[in-house]
Amino acid sequence: MDKQILLTPGPTPIPPETLAEEGLPIIHHRTREFSKIFDEIRENVKYILGTQREVYLLASSGTGAMECACVNICSPGDKAIVLAAGAFGERFVKILTAYGVNAVAVRSEWGSAVAPSELEKALKENPDAKAVFSTHTDTSTTMASPIQKYGEIVAKTNAVLVVDAISGLGGQELYMDKWNCDVVISASQKGLMAAPGLAFISVSAKAWPLVQASKSPRFYWDLRIAEKFMESGQTPFTPAISIIRSTNVSLRSIRKKGIEKVYEETRELAKYTRDLGLKMGMKMFAKDPADVLTGFWVPEGVDSEKLIEKIVDKYNISIAGGQEKLKGKIVRVAHMGYILKSDIDKGMKALAETLNEMKVPAGR
Amino acid sequence: MDKQILLTPGPTPIPPETLAEEGLPIIHHRTREFSKIFDEIRENVKYILGTQREVYLLASSGTGAMECACVNICSPGDKAIVLAAGAFGERFVKILTAYGVNAVAVRSEWGSAVAPSELEKALKENPDAKAVFSTHTDTSTTMASPIQKYGEIVAKTNAVLVVDAISGLGGQELYMDKWNCDVVISASQKGLMAAPGLAFISVSAKAWPLVQASKSPRFYWDLRIAEKFMESGQTPFTPAISIIRSTNVSLRSIRKKGIEKVYEETRELAKYTRDLGLKMGMKMFAKDPADVLTGFWVPEGVDSEKLIEKIVDKYNISIAGGQEKLKGKIVRVAHMGYILKSDIDKGMKALAETLNEMKVPAGR
Repeated sequence: MDKQILLTPGPTPIPPETLAEEGLPIIHHRTREFSKIFDEIRENVKYILGTQREVYLLASSGTGAMECACVNICSPGDKAIVLAAGAFGERFVKILTAYGVNAVAVRSEWGSAVAPSELEKALKENPDAKAVFSTHTDTSTTMASPIQKYGEIVAKTNAVLVVDAISGLGGQELYMDKWNCDVVISASQKGLMAAPGLAFISVSAKAWPLVQASKSPRFYWDLRIAEKFMESGQTPFTPAISIIRSTNVSLRSIRKKGIEKVYEETRELAKYTRDLGLKMGMKMFAKDPADVLTGFWVPEGVDSEKLIEKIVDKYNISIAGGQEKLKGKIVRVAHMGYILKSDIDKGMKALAETLNEMKVPAGR
Repeated sequence: MDKQILLTPGPTPIPPETLAEEGLPIIHHRTREFSKIFDEIRENVKYILGTQREVYLLASSGTGAMECACVNICSPGDKAIVLAAGAFGERFVKILTAYGVNAVAVRSEWGSAVAPSELEKALKENPDAKAVFSTHTDTSTTMASPIQKYGEIVAKTNAVLVVDAISGLGGQELYMDKWNCDVVISASQKGLMAAPGLAFISVSAKAWPLVQASKSPRFYWDLRIAEKFMESGQTPFTPAISIIRSTNVSLRSIRKKGIEKVYEETRELAKYTRDLGLKMGMKMFAKDPADVLTGFWVPEGVDSEKLIEKIVDKYNISIAGGQEKLKGKIVRVAHMGYILKSDIDKGMKALAETLNEMKVPAGR
């Protein structure tokens, strides 16, 4: 069997030097050795986020960081606007609702971002909204949001802008401070090219008073505790040491290359992938496509779940199918992080051959 | 410099075959390949826990699993008894209080377990207590609790027994079902000999209705969601894939050896360590010592923080100091998991030599 190729939108492939670091003997986290790494990784994440603010590390997957943002920013009974442009926007609605926050969802057609005018309207209709929750790139719908425009709009109000950049960071342009993002969360296993289990959160000066005032119950996610431990270069609870060290190796390589260059390469690989798909007669799903992955409609009569199963069985290449209402209807091909042009070539070739074998024309 | 030796009570050293697994290329979690590992690791944890009940995996450190237990078992306004025999018992008090639970703390002198008679008294005085929270082994005080006796007592009531076995599992005897434990939590980085970032929780049939009824806000920790995804052999949120795979390698070795044999070896190594310490003139701190680590008083006039710093600098051996009110007063030497007799020999020798160098008699 061929070497496995992951074209799924997280976890994404991990560079060999990052894997090697993850396999090193463990070190203790209450040591100077760890504090040094802890300082370095936070600096690297701050560079990639484009922020001067502190970065807090969580031992959790991205959803944990979403919950961390919700409970530190909103209190029960608060109102929050959620720009729900896919499954991960809906997840914010679920978390906020679970914590007794009145989540006002502004939905877009899947594959499209919520228009900035819709955000303006929602803020006008809900002047008491404490926060606006948005998704940088939603892998479920392969869409990217106009975060910069959201930031301009929200900055004029008392509300704060929360950005889930779990799948976008390190691939899709984002400048936390410049774009007026107040809370940005991310995780290790996508554009940051490491194993899952590590998440990040950063909070602006505008949003920090909300953290101190929030009445939502919290302990593991309590950023006030994290801030207190920061003084001694530590995390309050045992951190995901091996993933912190290995993620840091990937972050160093991003920093060495330069984040602008990474964005440029990601955009180029997106275009390359799309051209191959269009040449095969496939159509793109998203109207506001992200740079980090592409969704293609599969031809009429083809179940994309069966298609990707055939591809993984024959080629050992993992491509994602559609989620929820898109199940069976689309395939999603990631092109971020350590996914290279040669991986895309192999993946798209496998896609074309398998569709051919299923004896259906590739167009829809 | 010598090879680093970790004698800290978590993270503990990781066997080479486990490290090697952690450094393997990542796999995707929505695959049959992952489901197979997911099934196997749950079976292995169930074996070590001594339970027929399901085991849920969390991408978090142990404290996350503590919070998971609190919010799934207790609702705001509920009363819970906490047998607080150290820093980790106090942590249960903090988490429960954060969630509006009325935590009735029954404290013991540090180093001693809470006497079963104290638990009986607390249950009599608080017949409305929904749960009893206990700590299997508290690394902060090097004490072990008589969990079997607690189980007998709590089983006669409507309350459920929650056991934090984060530092004890895979070293200190525990039989979840046989001992009437209702909720047991643990984590990967101690007796289970893997990197931190993975936690476990199992819930008895008696306690499961509480999970369904709890009014505490929860999403990431919601075991109802985890249970739903269990049907398809998956976790609801991206799991800590690399740590799951590597932990499973360590668990296989425990299972191959047999858990009884592991307990026996841990007890033997505890005795060996203590004999060395006593021979050096040191005294044990705990009245109810755990099998997984030993606390020794350092001689009068010695700051144990400085002592362990000297040891790590000269010998590259990490020994833990005291926490909170024990800071500077004790050293804690772990002897669980992949800590071998040769490591203990080196650590205790370094301890003796450094005390000698500090020109203080070892006795207190």
